[in-house]
Amino acid sequence: MEDNNKPKVSLISKPANMLKTVYTACRTCYSADYPINIYNSTDDTEKMLKLVERVISSGHYSTIEHIQVSFAISNVSRACTHQLVRHRHMSFSQKSQRYVKEKGQFDYLIPPTIDKDPVLKQKFIDFMGEISNKYQEFVEAGIPAEDARAVLPNATATSMVASLNLRELIHLANLRLCSRAQFEIRMLVKGMCDALVTEEPWLKPYLVAKCDRYGYCDEDKSCGRKPKLEELVKS
Amino acid sequence: MEDNNKPKVSLISKPANMLKTVYTACRTCYSADYPINIYNSTDDTEKMLKLVERVISSGHYSTIEHIQVSFAISNVSRACTHQLVRHRHMSFSQKSQRYVKEKGQFDYLIPPTIDKDPVLKQKFIDFMGEISNKYQEFVEAGIPAEDARAVLPNATATSMVASLNLRELIHLANLRLCSRAQFEIRMLVKGMCDALVTEEPWLKPYLVAKCDRYGYCDEDKSCGRKPKLEELVKS
Amino acid sequence: MEDNNKPKVSLISKPANMLKTVYTACRTCYSADYPINIYNSTDDTEKMLKLVERVISSGHYSTIEHIQVSFAISNVSRACTHQLVRHRHMSFSQKSQRYVKEKGQFDYLIPPTIDKDPVLKQKFIDFMGEISNKYQEFVEAGIPAEDARAVLPNATATSMVASLNLRELIHLANLRLCSRAQFEIRMLVKGMCDALVTEEPWLKPYLVAKCDRYGYCDEDKSCGRKPKLEELVKS
Amino acid sequence: MEDNNKPKVSLISKPANMLKTVYTACRTCYSADYPINIYNSTDDTEKMLKLVERVISSGHYSTIEHIQVSFAISNVSRACTHQLVRHRHMSFSQKSQRYVKEKGQFDYLIPPTIDKDPVLKQKFIDFMGEISNKYQEFVEAGIPAEDARAVLPNATATSMVASLNLRELIHLANLRLCSRAQFEIRMLVKGMCDALVTEEPWLKPYLVAKCDRYGYCDEDKSCGRKPKLEELVKS
Repeated sequence: MEDNNKPKVSLISKPANMLKTVYTACRTCYSADYPINIYNSTDDTEKMLKLVERVISSGHYSTIEHIQVSFAISNVSRACTHQLVRHRHMSFSQKSQRYVKEKGQFDYLIPPTIDKDPVLKQKFIDFMGEISNKYQEFVEAGIPAEDARAVLPNATATSMVASLNLRELIHLANLRLCSRAQFEIRMLVKGMCDALVTEEPWLKPYLVAKCDRYGYCDEDKSCGRKPKLEELVKS
Repeated sequence: MEDNNKPKVSLISKPANMLKTVYTACRTCYSADYPINIYNSTDDTEKMLKLVERVISSGHYSTIEHIQVSFAISNVSRACTHQLVRHRHMSFSQKSQRYVKEKGQFDYLIPPTIDKDPVLKQKFIDFMGEISNKYQEFVEAGIPAEDARAVLPNATATSMVASLNLRELIHLANLRLCSRAQFEIRMLVKGMCDALVTEEPWLKPYLVAKCDRYGYCDEDKSCGRKPKLEELVKS
Repeated sequence: MEDNNKPKVSLISKPANMLKTVYTACRTCYSADYPINIYNSTDDTEKMLKLVERVISSGHYSTIEHIQVSFAISNVSRACTHQLVRHRHMSFSQKSQRYVKEKGQFDYLIPPTIDKDPVLKQKFIDFMGEISNKYQEFVEAGIPAEDARAVLPNATATSMVASLNLRELIHLANLRLCSRAQFEIRMLVKGMCDALVTEEPWLKPYLVAKCDRYGYCDEDKSCGRKPKLEELVKS
Repeated sequence: MEDNNKPKVSLISKPANMLKTVYTACRTCYSADYPINIYNSTDDTEKMLKLVERVISSGHYSTIEHIQVSFAISNVSRACTHQLVRHRHMSFSQKSQRYVKEKGQFDYLIPPTIDKDPVLKQKFIDFMGEISNKYQEFVEAGIPAEDARAVLPNATATSMVASLNLRELIHLANLRLCSRAQFEIRMLVKGMCDALVTEEPWLKPYLVAKCDRYGYCDEDKSCGRKPKLEELVKS
C-alpha cells in the first residue's frame, strides 16, 4: 500500500553519460589532450570512477557541476517547498496557487507528530475540511484564487519540477539529511537521492548527511551521534 | 494613521558612497588609470551621474552589482515571501516558524479583495481566530511549533532581512511593479524602492515596471497600458 | 580542409528528453495534475513546442533552466576564455597552465585582422616561436610551469568542458553573437549554438543576437543594422 | 619603499554598520520581534559579536551575505585575474584590453621564482620589452588593440573593482590563502583580507586558510602542516 502522507519523487531527466562527462571534465584540467579526445577514448568505468572519487574527495566540486538532473515532485507541503526554494542553485517550476484553483478538498500533508496520535490526527483532518470550506466560500463569493488562498495552510500539498547539478545535490543531501532538518524535507531529499542512486549507484557515498560524510558534526545543537570537530582536533 | 495591512520596509544598510563606487567601476573598464586614483579624483556628482546613466542604459548591468543594500521587512505574508525568495540573487534571513512559537493571535495580512468587503473581511478575521485557536490547541497538546504550524495560513505575517545588489533590485522592480504581479509583492517592492529612492533619488528612473522602462510590454496577458514589442517593430 | 584557426566545439552531453522536460515544467505551473502524470501523458511534439514557445516568448525563462548541456571546447585562446568565464551561470573545467607544461611550440590562435595580412601573419607566427623558446628557456632553468607561463601570450590555445542551462545559453547567444562582441567569442558561441541546433532544431530562433530576437539594438555604439528602442517607441 | 611587484588593494566601499546588520539578520530568524526593532535596540558590540560568532561557527553563512564590500585592485596579472574571476559569487569591473590601448611599456608582474634570480629576472624584463615592441608594431600597422593584445603575456598587469559578500570573502580566503594556491593570488587575497580586518578586526579569525579554520587539510597533495581529516576521525 502506498503511503499518501509523504512526498512523491521521480527522476525524469539526466544525461545518459554522467560519469563519462564528469571524468572528461576532471581530466581536462590536467591533460594536454583535447577534451573531445579524452571523452572518446575512455570507457573503463572503474578507471573513471577512481579518478572522479579522488577529485570529489579533494573538494574540487566544480567538476561535478557539469551534470544536472531533474525531478518531478508532488504531494509535498508548501511549508516544505518554502524551505526547498531557499536553495538558490536549484531551478524550480512550481504549481501556482494564484492560477490553479483548488476544486473540492485540497490535498495536504499531516505532520508526523500529529499523524501518529489518532485523536490529534482526526482533529487535523477535520480542520483541513473546515479550511477547505472557507476557501470555497470565498471563491464562491467571487474572490479570485490568488486571494482566497490566503486561508490555505502550510500543510497544503503542492507540486514542482526541480533541477539541480550534482554539486548542489550533494550539498542539499549533506544539509537536509541531517537529523536537525525538518522531517518532511528529509523525506523529500531522501526520495531524490534514492531515485538517482538507483540509476547511478556510484553516487551513494556522497548523498548522505554531512556528519556521515565528514565524520564530525558542526551543528550548534548536535544530536550527538558524531563528535564535534573541536573534539577531534584537540585529541 | 498607519496602515497595518501592508508590508513595513526600512532600509537599514547601504554604503555611503554608492554613486562614486559605481562610477569608479564604470571608468575602470575603459581607463588606463588605477581604480583607486579614479575613486580619489572624482567628486563631480553630475559628471558621475551622466556616465553611470549611460552605462546602465546600454545594459552593462555588472557595474551596478558593486552596490548592495539591506532592508528590514515585516508584516508581510508567507504567501508573499514564498514568491520573494524565488529571487535567487538575493540574500534572506527570515523569521523561522520552526523555532519561533506564535503566542496568542498570530499577525496576518488581509488580501485586498477581501479587505474592501466588510462582510467578507469579518469572516476572514473570524477564521484567522479559529486557526489561531487550533494552532494553540496542538501546541498545548505537546505538538512542537514546527508541526503545529502546518495549520497556519498563507496569510500569516512574517519578517525578514533581505539584501540585494542594484542590478537585482532593478530587475526585481521591473518584474514585480508590473500590474500582473500580485498586489502584496507590488506593495512590498514599492516600499523597498521608495526607501532607497529617498536617499538616492538618481535611481528613481530605473526602479519602475519593465514597461515603464522599455516602453513596451512582454507579458502574455498584457494589461494593455503599453504596446507589445511586435507592434512597435512592425510599425 | 579543417580550419585550424578557430575554436573546436562538440556537444558531449544533454538529456534525451529536453523538450518533454521543459514542457512538463511549463505545464506544472498551471495544472492541478501531478508533474509525473503530465510527463508520462505527453508525446505530441507539436503541442509541446507550441506551449514552450509561448512561455519563452513571455520571458518566463526559469522553465528552460531545467535543461543543461555540456560542450567539449578546444583551440580557443586564453583571451577568449577570460571573457567566457565571466558568465557566472556556467560551469567550467579548464586546462591548467599551472599543472600542464607546454612541450614544444604551444598552440595559439591568430587574430583575424592579423591572419588576413600575410606579412603580419608571418611576423605573428615567428613571434609565437620566440615566446615558445623563452618559455622553454625558463622551464629548462628550473622555473615551474606555473611561473614560466607568465610569458605565454593571450593568443595561447586552451581547452575546457563548459556546461550551461538553456536560459544561460540563450542569454550567451543574445549577447555574444552581437557584432560588437569580439570575433573569436562569436565564433565559439556560434559553434556551441550550431552543435545544439543540429540536434534540437526548435531552439534555433532563440540562439541569435539580441537584436535579431527583439528587433532593436540597445548597444551604446550600435552597428546600425537594427533601430534603437527609443526610435521604435517614439514612432 | 613600496614593492612594485605585488598587487595593490584598497577597500573602497563597505556599509558603516556591518556587525549590527549581521546581528539583526541572525536575531530575525529566532525572534518574534520586528527586525527594525532588533536593529534599533542594540548597540552592545560584545553581545552582537558573541551571537554572530556562534552563528558563523555553526555554518549558517547566509546571515553574513547581507554585507558586501568593494575593493579597488591594481597591479595584478591577467593570469591571476583569470583565476579570480572564476569565483562566481563575486562582481567584477575590469580594465578592458580591447578598449584600453597600452601606451609604451605595459606594466607586468614578475613571478617569484624568476624575481629572486637576478639573471632570469633580467631576461624576463628584457623579454617584456620585446613583447611591448611587438605589440606596438602591430598597433602601428593598424591592428586594433583587441587583436594586437594577442601577443601580450599572462604577466601583463590589469586593474579591477571587485565586490563580494562576507560569505564569499571567507570562502575565498579559506581556499586562496592555502599554500597550494598560486603565490600571486595568495598575496592579492591577503591584501583584501588585511584591508578589511584593519577596519573590522572581529573578522580576522575567519579570513584564514581553510586548514587554520578547521584544523585539518582536505587537499589531495597536502603541504603536511595540518593532519588530514581521515587521520583525525580514525584516531
